[in-house]
Amino acid sequence: MQNKGEVIIYGRHAVKAALANPRRNIMRVFCLKENLAELAGKVSEKKVSVVGRQELEKMLPRDAVHQGMAAAAEMLPGISTEELCAKACEKENCHLLVLDQVTDPQNIGAIIRSCAAFDALALVVQDKNSPQESGAMLKAAAGTYELLPVCRVTNLARTMEKLKKEGFWVVGMDGYAKGDISTLPKDGKLAVIMGSEGAGMRRLVEESCDLTVRLPINPGVESLNVSTAAAVVLYELNRK
Amino acid sequence: MQNKGEVIIYGRHAVKAALANPRRNIMRVFCLKENLAELAGKVSEKKVSVVGRQELEKMLPRDAVHQGMAAAAEMLPGISTEELCAKACEKENCHLLVLDQVTDPQNIGAIIRSCAAFDALALVVQDKNSPQESGAMLKAAAGTYELLPVCRVTNLARTMEKLKKEGFWVVGMDGYAKGDISTLPKDGKLAVIMGSEGAGMRRLVEESCDLTVRLPINPGVESLNVSTAAAVVLYELNRK
Repeated sequence: MQNKGEVIIYGRHAVKAALANPRRNIMRVFCLKENLAELAGKVSEKKVSVVGRQELEKMLPRDAVHQGMAAAAEMLPGISTEELCAKACEKENCHLLVLDQVTDPQNIGAIIRSCAAFDALALVVQDKNSPQESGAMLKAAAGTYELLPVCRVTNLARTMEKLKKEGFWVVGMDGYAKGDISTLPKDGKLAVIMGSEGAGMRRLVEESCDLTVRLPINPGVESLNVSTAAAVVLYELNRK
Repeated sequence: MQNKGEVIIYGRHAVKAALANPRRNIMRVFCLKENLAELAGKVSEKKVSVVGRQELEKMLPRDAVHQGMAAAAEMLPGISTEELCAKACEKENCHLLVLDQVTDPQNIGAIIRSCAAFDALALVVQDKNSPQESGAMLKAAAGTYELLPVCRVTNLARTMEKLKKEGFWVVGMDGYAKGDISTLPKDGKLAVIMGSEGAGMRRLVEESCDLTVRLPINPGVESLNVSTAAAVVLYELNRK
């Protein structure tokens, strides 16, 4: 039942946030009888189908925590690099997060939640290697997917060059870097790049960084989960 | 095949860290043929069973990311409140994390990883409402479960009183608190309490706090995932 360009959203926060987003085209909402009251005033009754638990679970991935509601919707359009640069142009200080090869939808959803919480301008991902918007990603983002612009680019290294021309410092996260994240400048424009947990950034991407920094963690601990690491660096950047 | 007090550990980091932990009693290691070389020198060959993928997956929860290895082991003994206090006594500055009603094993595993990364003294949980050590928890902890003392207590409010007598400041995380985590003292002994994502701390626990603080997040974002929030506050406490 899921067509190209469409997504089945599930979970209370994700569904309600989608309904509250005027840019989101929702085709249909599916809801257990006992959760119907929660949707009052949030969506036209004509769009809601009250379904049984089994029917609801049949639409969703196995073990999806749906909290009694789901919605069939069109995926959100992302923003282009040009739109991203225009947004950055309006700001004196801003930061954005760039993911290189992070592929787990739940991690990406959690990262989006942290980007929204710590006022990142946008999330940049490489189109080819990054999963599309999905129910699992939106569930992990807990409603914040509706708030954060996502920019899907073809060539990450080229985008980084463009960002540099726009005045961004491009910073790579690397466990072996000398300086830690507390040394990052708090003013100006900063793009932080995170690689996958296993392999880190690709060489070409790392070479385009202005500098690399690490998280100040106990040397007995190899790394943090990429979404945890993202939250910590975003917090640090946002710290007054 | 899993007996009381035993745990099936899975995933490369979790299994290898368990093998490297002299306090961990490992009964048997199960391994795919192609992953056998990774275990060379880490465990007596007599303890290793080379198994097929199907056989391995039959021992594990559905969809467990086992990376070709698992181990049957005894659960680690936790530390008592007395041992915790003795540990704290040796330190001038230290922090520990206390979880009230956090029940998701993956969240707890991720929190353990952050505790280890940011040098928390220990993790304190309420025995009754907190899941036992499990494969999913250890997988999320990515090997750090072997490093961090976990203290399971019967009565959280009573433990907090004990900690206060030991010189700890007891701080509750609360989205509605006035001050944010940057106002926390960097010296001395600090116990940070986190409630569940949905319900927060229980009233009695919150009332025993010396003060409450919040994460400085965008007001448009309701909250962060509890494990993300824990990482950020632990980072802040550990910041020089």
